[in-house]
Amino acid sequence: MTANNTGKGRILLSLTGWSPDVWLDQLAKAAPDRAVTLTPDSEADPSIDYAVVWKQPPGLLSKLPNLKAIFSLGAGVDHVFVDTSLPNVPIVRVVSPNLTTRMSEYVVWQVLDHHRQGRLYRAQQAARIWEEDRNQKAAAELTVGIMGLGELGRDAAAKLEMMGFQVSGWARTEKHIEGVTCYAGSDGLGAFLASADIFVVLLPLTPETSEILNRDLFARMTKVGPLGAPVLINAGRGGLQNEADILTALDQGLLSAVTLDVFQQEPLADDSPLWNHPKVTITPHAAAASMPSSLIAPIIAQMDAHDRGEPLVNLVDRKVGY
Amino acid sequence: MTANNTGKGRILLSLTGWSPDVWLDQLAKAAPDRAVTLTPDSEADPSIDYAVVWKQPPGLLSKLPNLKAIFSLGAGVDHVFVDTSLPNVPIVRVVSPNLTTRMSEYVVWQVLDHHRQGRLYRAQQAARIWEEDRNQKAAAELTVGIMGLGELGRDAAAKLEMMGFQVSGWARTEKHIEGVTCYAGSDGLGAFLASADIFVVLLPLTPETSEILNRDLFARMTKVGPLGAPVLINAGRGGLQNEADILTALDQGLLSAVTLDVFQQEPLADDSPLWNHPKVTITPHAAAASMPSSLIAPIIAQMDAHDRGEPLVNLVDRKVGY
Repeated sequence: MTANNTGKGRILLSLTGWSPDVWLDQLAKAAPDRAVTLTPDSEADPSIDYAVVWKQPPGLLSKLPNLKAIFSLGAGVDHVFVDTSLPNVPIVRVVSPNLTTRMSEYVVWQVLDHHRQGRLYRAQQAARIWEEDRNQKAAAELTVGIMGLGELGRDAAAKLEMMGFQVSGWARTEKHIEGVTCYAGSDGLGAFLASADIFVVLLPLTPETSEILNRDLFARMTKVGPLGAPVLINAGRGGLQNEADILTALDQGLLSAVTLDVFQQEPLADDSPLWNHPKVTITPHAAAASMPSSLIAPIIAQMDAHDRGEPLVNLVDRKVGY
Repeated sequence: MTANNTGKGRILLSLTGWSPDVWLDQLAKAAPDRAVTLTPDSEADPSIDYAVVWKQPPGLLSKLPNLKAIFSLGAGVDHVFVDTSLPNVPIVRVVSPNLTTRMSEYVVWQVLDHHRQGRLYRAQQAARIWEEDRNQKAAAELTVGIMGLGELGRDAAAKLEMMGFQVSGWARTEKHIEGVTCYAGSDGLGAFLASADIFVVLLPLTPETSEILNRDLFARMTKVGPLGAPVLINAGRGGLQNEADILTALDQGLLSAVTLDVFQQEPLADDSPLWNHPKVTITPHAAAASMPSSLIAPIIAQMDAHDRGEPLVNLVDRKVGY
């Protein structure tokens, strides 16, 4: 099959682990003038000009001669870079207010659940115990430290601040965000890790951040605040964490509790000790679902703009991997 | 004992169910020039000019000849009006940013816990089930209806809106709040009850609102939204609710779940069926603790202002009971 009669090339939709139906549906609605295929007709299919991907099979995109850009269906693009034979075309991340808002819902929910003693009160309810935590601090007495200050981290920071928390943040490069005490790079990491009671991880997964959440890092989270030891919330990627080290840190009291939405291997193995650890909250990679309806329209709009000669936005920097 | 040597009268601190120590301590710090007593020397003790109360014994204040004002230590003043022999002096409610912020923490926490399927994911974790709720709506697809639009209700409304929710509100009298669809009085109640997926109750307890949360009201909550039937969150007063009706409404599916921080009788009785109902979240009147340090300073400031002839603020309207 070649380009359809609008003169536009085809879209290659390549998904691993997700059903394509709803995405095909949304693409048909948003771009009735573009044909969509789930596989190229050949390794060097000339009819494909854009790829929309979630964990595409390695090598799939490498020889498409007319590919103009790759669109990731996740905010993170580590799943794209698993393929080491990517062609030299622009890679575009998804930035969707819907996805950002959902992530902030999750972050604020879990921060509040730790801060407001959700685990304690649920245990008390199960045991019919009526006992108020008389030592409950106000949000202003806690600092939430955000690792990763991209779209997601900045939105979460603003909402946590509005809820009354002190907020600090850490990123690879220097950021200036009103109301947020920002730290940068390996030089700033120590001070950042000593600054917060609750750590929220929204980092991209790159070779630099792989298993950054490990024993050495936890040992540098030295603040002894209202929650005892610090709390860890990872809503980024499972590859950021070393789960054996998290369990050790919980048992040694370096961490007082964790919430994990992502795991080194997903689904989380049946026999993982994380499932029934009394200080672990688990959600099944559900923090911020990519809603087809909210993601596809901006992707199509970018394709149309690019076809008119306008620049793509939300481009991935291949050198840093996000 | 008469007024101390500063020329100022004494403060009567009358608490039921709370230890006075920390309050005495804060009063001594904030008003070193005012003497404090836990009981009057006599029924008509002339040395007392201000009362600071939490559930004062009925009759205690009725004959104090020089009492100038009564300060409630709670945002609600129903505990003051239990005493039907109150003298005709101004009654002042507490308005504290600290208390307001804590209440909004609680409201946002519990709204998010229902919206983001906390109960479902905790049950799944306990059973080692990895299954994302594919039907998760964004906050913007839900409406939170707030009953009571005083200081607490307005702050909660603003924060819920910032989290992305649609917000409606209901109060005895007409209110105009940006971004909030407001309904008023019994005329507006039906439309309000049909407007929301999650109801947050922050009403004052008065003869008019006593057991307002009853079977008839639940039957008018007709919205069938993402959560199925509506959710009820009562962080106001236990006297607002009929607990037998709440249980019936849950079992009949008029309500899909409830969070209760307050109860008709506190502590909640050991044998209450609420404790282990699968759709009930219980916290022990812990939504917004009155922090002595943040409450006493504004009360003393008001006494000083009143002594200088300035008007009291945050006055209670005795006719409506709040």
